[in-house]
Amino acid sequence: MFEKINGTITAPKGFKAAGIKAGIKKSGKEDVAIIYSTVPAVAAGVFTLNTMAAAPVVVSRKVAEKGLASAVVVNSGCANACTGAQGLADAEAMAALTAELLGIKAEEVFVASTGIIGVNLPMAKIKAGIQKAVTALSEEGGENASKAILTTDTFGKSCVYELSLSGVSVKIAGIAKGSGMIHPNMATMLGFITTDAAIAAPLLKQALTEVVNVSFNMISVDGDTSTNDMVTVLANGAAGNPLIDSANDDYAAFTAALKQVCTELAKLVARDGEGASKFLEITVSGAANFADAKQAAMAIAKSPLVKTAFFGQDPNWGRIICAVGYSGAQVIPEKTTMAIGDITIVKQGMGTSYDEQALRAIMLEHDIKVSVDLGVGTTEATVWSCDFSYEYVKINGEYHT
Amino acid sequence: MFEKINGTITAPKGFKAAGIKAGIKKSGKEDVAIIYSTVPAVAAGVFTLNTMAAAPVVVSRKVAEKGLASAVVVNSGCANACTGAQGLADAEAMAALTAELLGIKAEEVFVASTGIIGVNLPMAKIKAGIQKAVTALSEEGGENASKAILTTDTFGKSCVYELSLSGVSVKIAGIAKGSGMIHPNMATMLGFITTDAAIAAPLLKQALTEVVNVSFNMISVDGDTSTNDMVTVLANGAAGNPLIDSANDDYAAFTAALKQVCTELAKLVARDGEGASKFLEITVSGAANFADAKQAAMAIAKSPLVKTAFFGQDPNWGRIICAVGYSGAQVIPEKTTMAIGDITIVKQGMGTSYDEQALRAIMLEHDIKVSVDLGVGTTEATVWSCDFSYEYVKINGEYHT
Repeated sequence: MFEKINGTITAPKGFKAAGIKAGIKKSGKEDVAIIYSTVPAVAAGVFTLNTMAAAPVVVSRKVAEKGLASAVVVNSGCANACTGAQGLADAEAMAALTAELLGIKAEEVFVASTGIIGVNLPMAKIKAGIQKAVTALSEEGGENASKAILTTDTFGKSCVYELSLSGVSVKIAGIAKGSGMIHPNMATMLGFITTDAAIAAPLLKQALTEVVNVSFNMISVDGDTSTNDMVTVLANGAAGNPLIDSANDDYAAFTAALKQVCTELAKLVARDGEGASKFLEITVSGAANFADAKQAAMAIAKSPLVKTAFFGQDPNWGRIICAVGYSGAQVIPEKTTMAIGDITIVKQGMGTSYDEQALRAIMLEHDIKVSVDLGVGTTEATVWSCDFSYEYVKINGEYHT
Repeated sequence: MFEKINGTITAPKGFKAAGIKAGIKKSGKEDVAIIYSTVPAVAAGVFTLNTMAAAPVVVSRKVAEKGLASAVVVNSGCANACTGAQGLADAEAMAALTAELLGIKAEEVFVASTGIIGVNLPMAKIKAGIQKAVTALSEEGGENASKAILTTDTFGKSCVYELSLSGVSVKIAGIAKGSGMIHPNMATMLGFITTDAAIAAPLLKQALTEVVNVSFNMISVDGDTSTNDMVTVLANGAAGNPLIDSANDDYAAFTAALKQVCTELAKLVARDGEGASKFLEITVSGAANFADAKQAAMAIAKSPLVKTAFFGQDPNWGRIICAVGYSGAQVIPEKTTMAIGDITIVKQGMGTSYDEQALRAIMLEHDIKVSVDLGVGTTEATVWSCDFSYEYVKINGEYHT
């Protein structure tokens, strides 16, 4: 159906990108990115449900409503959240300047910011940065763009998939940033997707919403839903496939590939959670419904006691069962089964006489699967998460100062 | 109305207690406690809502339903949770042996356990321990009892208040254990209260439920609701006050004093949260209703990003406002005000130009107040919590092994 290929956000036809150093980050690293479709594109976006949504979210929501956008401008180092009227004016100025330099309309530019909350953007640096980024736009700029959207992330997150729609080769590419304040509600911290598929804006929105709910919305690093969460997609039709204007086979194929891109990026975000030394895949099956399955899996993923136990490589499984018990999901202890890796630890709500040596060996691995079967229904959900380490405390005790 | 006095759980008339070493804890410290009313008492209890409730919770719920109990038997070191039919039989055996030795009925003995989940009780040690504890029962045994219910706690939690009911002096005393897996839902980890007041069982239950909702249920260490949460009260009437059998002035006075006891114990539990280096008092006012106020305050209290910022003594206030924003409470950014100590940091959802030096000085203190005014209503709630430290990760990465 689809195939992974090399490349980054500029792999689909008709896209350019840039990531440059504007001096916003104290580290001096890349901190302004632009992603640009050289041909008009339709667009969709999903945004944080945090009521303290940042100014760029307010601006980008309007862009997504119209379903038309040709560019994304992003800065890291400052979230432009809790910044009032000035913040909103600054976010609008970012869109306006980007549009002016690209010869497009301001209302067709997504704006995104990430970094510290409550600080106004250094607009002189931002404006100079946008000018520099527009000049630097190229088909090779995707990797720099993926760097420029990071904060405490330890690596850039990027992937590209190719698929065939009615015999025409189409690409979907994405970049994401995560690391901290990651417990998405409609989107993760930041995710930007490009595609050269031709698809009608309402179907693009439908596909994105559906896919985000089972990818970006299924990760948690710390249980904190950010003020700046956003995932956007630009679809410029440059591949020349027949326009997807109904929920046909091409739509199904496109959505499947988009799901793959979003799932891969979401897992990379969880894998690179702040201070993470373990990547956890938590599947809850046998649930009464999806909400219950997700709730139980998320309760495990969020529990500091579970997360520190995995960091300590300590198979203290009672904490996992405890989290299932307070999750709010329909649970009948006598029907509950739990496994770590392929070792069944709990049956009928009670510990089994499992092989302790084998379990300890699994706890030493970097990637660990936890499976819970509630035994009350037929639905399952998988959540991706990480452990809580000394490094997590260090990163977040010292982030601001 | 009421006055704090010296003493512990045996301060009210007619109570004896003991805390002895039964060899359940690896540390060799006290691990079995008995609290005993030498005269028949009425009783009430509130219990965890965790569906994986431990065996002692199942047993004690039945005792509370009848409203009659003269003794509490507690062990630390093993939670007797996720232990199935054997666990239930063990909890019943604890009650039965205690009752037999005291010459009372098994259904009049509360049973409580705390410690690791998923491990069966070492019943030989437990039985020998109960015999030893019954022998050791005395009016001076309160302090040892308060020690015997601890796990990772760094100090025993105990207080006694005296009040006058219709001219008769009455005492209410309590002990508690907390430290980890503390995000109570109907009760904290363990809290035991004794009083020599004469009060009808239904009113005792009403008073306890009301009081727990604004005391033990207003603390969070880690957001994890334990399988073993329980708060019980024994009221033996030995003080000789006129029986409180209606919601009269004496009932109001009794409830006020009980609230003081429970609030003081709850704050001690939050103060002694695992690895805590800060004690946080978070008040959310101006809320549409109590549920909203509590939800917003709890979101702040639970956020690992907020907790690590306080540990790092870093006034990264955006994380506090972010938590309010995703709490689910009715929030209008432009109406939201936030202060740390007496310094207003946020007005109308935006940062103020506060005195940074003064704020840093407040962050260095051990006890810190956070006040949020949502500006949308007239209700407030106060939650007590603590920070997240390296020590938290250490304690919980190494607890089991």
